[in-house]
Amino acid sequence: MKEFLPLAEVYAILEPGPVVLLGTAQAGRANLMPMSWHTMLEFEPPLVGCVVSAANHSFAALEATGECVLNVPSAELLDQLVACGNSHGDKVDKFAKYGLTAEPSAQVAVPRVEECWANLECRVVDRQLVGSYNFFVLEVLQAWHDPTVKVPRTLHHRGYGKFMIAGDEVQSGSKMR
Amino acid sequence: MKEFLPLAEVYAILEPGPVVLLGTAQAGRANLMPMSWHTMLEFEPPLVGCVVSAANHSFAALEATGECVLNVPSAELLDQLVACGNSHGDKVDKFAKYGLTAEPSAQVAVPRVEECWANLECRVVDRQLVGSYNFFVLEVLQAWHDPTVKVPRTLHHRGYGKFMIAGDEVQSGSKMR
Repeated sequence: MKEFLPLAEVYAILEPGPVVLLGTAQAGRANLMPMSWHTMLEFEPPLVGCVVSAANHSFAALEATGECVLNVPSAELLDQLVACGNSHGDKVDKFAKYGLTAEPSAQVAVPRVEECWANLECRVVDRQLVGSYNFFVLEVLQAWHDPTVKVPRTLHHRGYGKFMIAGDEVQSGSKMR
Repeated sequence: MKEFLPLAEVYAILEPGPVVLLGTAQAGRANLMPMSWHTMLEFEPPLVGCVVSAANHSFAALEATGECVLNVPSAELLDQLVACGNSHGDKVDKFAKYGLTAEPSAQVAVPRVEECWANLECRVVDRQLVGSYNFFVLEVLQAWHDPTVKVPRTLHHRGYGKFMIAGDEVQSGSKMR
């Protein structure tokens, strides 16, 4: 069962750089796309910047609706993640085809992926750099996580289908938040 | 010995989300700061977006000079990375104090960290979002890497001094670049 995650803790999910499944929905059809080009911009309210290629179906949906969900998969979802990247949302219902479960979101009209250990419901809040870099600024409105996942085995893309799987954790004496 | 890395391959270094040591230099003093809030914005020429808190000495140097180096450490540099984050560049020569070696750069007046397996020489090319989010757009002018490092053990910050060390690699059938 997923639980709410305090918004102040959202940055710790994205800061390590995992690939996410960008969820969008338009005209009654939900879509999913792998996305690695994202960064935190602010702790709280959590702001995220991300690049969505204008060549993608997801770009049009994000532009039109201003809403999305960032779903964070771990290693056991690699095949589904890759399948979502290799197919087109206008032709395929990716939830149905790849065995993913759509959960209703609390604040946006885009479903969450139940199989992902974390889900971030987002709204577009700044489009200044969409024209130059396809760069959207998102505010995370609501965050969910599976509290039993203590050390997530996230996936990190190294290009051309090569992924690094998150390894061991170390605790340092850093004073950085 | 470091070698030039083709600019088209730069994204594969940053896309997995490693913490980097942001190098700047001003008034004859080089500085280093851990930075995790960065994302690729374009493949080639490689563009990187990054957030540098205005509270940091590095912000002032980057604002003034428009130049920096992104140095990518691997796990054996954890202690030095943390020490750089816990000290102040206006009071400490971090290269000297933490045993890091300054190598001259080719295109910017900021030294590279020899001990880091990759170094990206950058220039600020867009400041539109500096006012709103302390977000700088950098162009990577010159990239260096240690060609003997095939699977880098990069560090990925999970907050409050906890780091994930890059784990195993898997090759998927993804068609994503």
